[in-house]
Amino acid sequence: MNGAESLVRTLLACEVDTCFANPGTSEMHFVAALDAVPGMRCVLGLAEGVVGGCADGYARMSGKPAATLLHCGPGLGNAIANLHNAKRARVPLVNIVGDHATYHQAFDPPLAYDVEGLARTVSHWVRTATQPGRVGERAAQAVCSARTPPGQIATLVLPADASWLEGGVVADPIAPPRRNTVDASIVDDIARVLRRGERTIVLLGDESLGERGLVAAQRVAQASGATLIATPQVRRIARGRGRPAVNRVPYALEPALKVFEGVRHIVLVGAKPPVQFFAYPGKPSVVYPPESELHTLAALDEDQVGALEMLAEVLSAAKQVASPPAARDGAMPRGAFTPEAFGGMFERLIPEDAVVVDDAVTSGRQLFGHTFGAAPHDWLQITGGAIGFALPCATGAAIGAPGRKVVCLQADGGGMYSLQALWTQAREGLDVVTVIFANRRYAILQGELMAVGATPGRASKDLFDIGRPDLDWVKLAQGMGVEARRVDVLEDFADVFSAACARRGPFVIEMRI
Amino acid sequence: MNGAESLVRTLLACEVDTCFANPGTSEMHFVAALDAVPGMRCVLGLAEGVVGGCADGYARMSGKPAATLLHCGPGLGNAIANLHNAKRARVPLVNIVGDHATYHQAFDPPLAYDVEGLARTVSHWVRTATQPGRVGERAAQAVCSARTPPGQIATLVLPADASWLEGGVVADPIAPPRRNTVDASIVDDIARVLRRGERTIVLLGDESLGERGLVAAQRVAQASGATLIATPQVRRIARGRGRPAVNRVPYALEPALKVFEGVRHIVLVGAKPPVQFFAYPGKPSVVYPPESELHTLAALDEDQVGALEMLAEVLSAAKQVASPPAARDGAMPRGAFTPEAFGGMFERLIPEDAVVVDDAVTSGRQLFGHTFGAAPHDWLQITGGAIGFALPCATGAAIGAPGRKVVCLQADGGGMYSLQALWTQAREGLDVVTVIFANRRYAILQGELMAVGATPGRASKDLFDIGRPDLDWVKLAQGMGVEARRVDVLEDFADVFSAACARRGPFVIEMRI
Repeated sequence: MNGAESLVRTLLACEVDTCFANPGTSEMHFVAALDAVPGMRCVLGLAEGVVGGCADGYARMSGKPAATLLHCGPGLGNAIANLHNAKRARVPLVNIVGDHATYHQAFDPPLAYDVEGLARTVSHWVRTATQPGRVGERAAQAVCSARTPPGQIATLVLPADASWLEGGVVADPIAPPRRNTVDASIVDDIARVLRRGERTIVLLGDESLGERGLVAAQRVAQASGATLIATPQVRRIARGRGRPAVNRVPYALEPALKVFEGVRHIVLVGAKPPVQFFAYPGKPSVVYPPESELHTLAALDEDQVGALEMLAEVLSAAKQVASPPAARDGAMPRGAFTPEAFGGMFERLIPEDAVVVDDAVTSGRQLFGHTFGAAPHDWLQITGGAIGFALPCATGAAIGAPGRKVVCLQADGGGMYSLQALWTQAREGLDVVTVIFANRRYAILQGELMAVGATPGRASKDLFDIGRPDLDWVKLAQGMGVEARRVDVLEDFADVFSAACARRGPFVIEMRI
Repeated sequence: MNGAESLVRTLLACEVDTCFANPGTSEMHFVAALDAVPGMRCVLGLAEGVVGGCADGYARMSGKPAATLLHCGPGLGNAIANLHNAKRARVPLVNIVGDHATYHQAFDPPLAYDVEGLARTVSHWVRTATQPGRVGERAAQAVCSARTPPGQIATLVLPADASWLEGGVVADPIAPPRRNTVDASIVDDIARVLRRGERTIVLLGDESLGERGLVAAQRVAQASGATLIATPQVRRIARGRGRPAVNRVPYALEPALKVFEGVRHIVLVGAKPPVQFFAYPGKPSVVYPPESELHTLAALDEDQVGALEMLAEVLSAAKQVASPPAARDGAMPRGAFTPEAFGGMFERLIPEDAVVVDDAVTSGRQLFGHTFGAAPHDWLQITGGAIGFALPCATGAAIGAPGRKVVCLQADGGGMYSLQALWTQAREGLDVVTVIFANRRYAILQGELMAVGATPGRASKDLFDIGRPDLDWVKLAQGMGVEARRVDVLEDFADVFSAACARRGPFVIEMRI
């Protein structure tokens, strides 16, 4: 058995059975092993930004790592942006990066690259398997590292000769550490803080945003009067009718400061102290009052749900939790897009049990707050700020959550970063309805330029305006085998979106705004 | 004056007047400075792979560095692949990478990234300008570094506060070192080797592939009987009627070994000893006989053209050089694509003084050898093996060589990596005719898999076949505002290509093969 085959067999033994890939010559023996060993689903992305984002979305929905297969330094480089988003989401993910044969590196061939150095900038764990006999062991370590709470990016560099030489040994899975249980004394301390009745925010992130965590948190809030709020970026949050309505810390500084105004205590559950996305001259980096006290109920690697449930019990909280009213019936809005009108409409259109993937930026920021009364769904958000997230993430999410409708909300600027994901949706026949918010500009940057007090001139017009010429998303989607429609008014959107959700397979709606 | 303005003014003082960009929030003060200070041409790329490739093509044609403007670690990450190609081409290039304000990094905001660590993997020179008063100086150093022969990638990381704070100082340009002149004794030594009459190859790379270098090399070859050959990857080579016909070292191992069979001496001119692109089990890494002697006439940072001219004089070489016969007239080929028929046709179609950019991979490898009799032109080739090169490079080349027709030869697989470049061509009204060689598969990988002795199975079929569904390049191009036509037979290609070359502006031809 060569190293490549031991790798495939070890990944399968570790329950890694999905591989998002764009291979090259140095990965040929790995591909041959995939041919020879049944059981690995291989999904091609037409650029590695798609590959990385797919693995992120897959992990968010399936809860387990996919493998990526990337070609040398440049292949990994193309994946960096969405791997960064995945790293920030704390999902488990195993990158297999093929590289030149060990002895060939010294000749400095054209694709020679410091792959380990590159991988370290976006990974929690990096190793190179230089011996075929060690490949399996390294792969098992990589999967264990990826599954170490709260989830890590593990990158295994695989030189071609370690792949093709005989001597491969299949390794047994290595059990990852479990999440640590939070000590009862910590829970008691937090309960005492909450009982004081001082203005308190419970900041929820990571796994506390699942349905069980949210219910426990809501019980705590009802019993204590504390306010629940989610981190500004969420990997995945359970939402909709029958579930607690928890908003996020706003992106913009002023509303974020408003949320934390007068707060005495911040209880952190799978969350770091909330910071501004960017710094601005003369403005604070953190959005909470400097005099407020920070208390950690459960860290990222701890059992956040268990801690919240313990806390609810200590507070003798009622089991019953409030949830938002269902979306109102009545006439759908008409006319041109506004965030408010679209949000109210979208609340009523989200399909039952849908997965919503959000990289809608300026067009979509208000959608979250307008959709608490929708049918139950999960919401996945860009976590690392590297745009070009939603199309690939939605693609991977559809593979990680078969049978669920995926709704992808993508701003046009970010969409152009990884539009190739639509082709993968077409090939795999994935149930993804994509909404492109086509404002034909980097609207966020226009706002940011104003915020720094500058007068927009020719350069900023050239750099923020992505019209001239306008992108035609219907043609772009059709060019990759995905059906598409353009809509200019809200009433058309409702019709087209409902029809798209009622059928199978991918569909793109260009919403002109 | 803030740091950003000192940066713009220093770049302009250093004759860097073109900026390929995709900015984000941390670059807003730089954009504001671009608005305030006239003289910098700003060209937007809808993803950073486009930005990096444009800067490469621009430098290859203009001979001077462009700036790129990239947003934080992920923005740089997206550019890595084409920056790697640029690094391997040894072009001058200055990356400006915006980053968080220095004091904001400690809060670990979502976009926090080890930008310097990432930049080091693809740059010859990396600095972070943390003080506004040092930004100008650092920019001048970056340009000097970029222009240091044979050309370097210089990356300047610009934290937002260094950009927005007052205290900027415009720096004077720093003269880069000149190429060293090769010592006459070296030239005499090489002349003695050549006079022995033993089988000798002169391997030409870098600036020796310009018209002057090639003419001098051809004189040397005629006087000595040595064979000229170019490196397997060329940044830019002057070709066509009236110019010496120099072929490249073949990509594939067997024909490359054939070229060097029985060779006693290899004279290196701006070239490293030729190595295989990839290693294969049991095959050599280098393509020349181990017993052959390597002689360096001029290293990468030396005056290669001057050395060749000195050598020609020492050999008392005739001034007159042979050049290939002009392409034959007669009926154009008809029917389906074959590399030979297409090559013979393409030789007659290349416009006078065109710039040909080649990332055609399997479909295009034979075109080089079939086009020596074309009208005079320059040929630019992918140098680092990171696919997705030709569309961005052609875009930048058109900006770097105004008034010249650019012909872009792009394989469909690689084309999908950076198709967004077509939009920049449309916006800028660039004279680029792109030929997409649509074989709807990663044909190179099918060949490589066979080469490793594997039997193609389900996984390799899923990973090498980029049909299912077929890409429609006409719609993809039109979706970005570029006119396009599909052709299935050679006679149609000739008509459509000639018409596209006769008009202004970008055009895409999908050649189904």
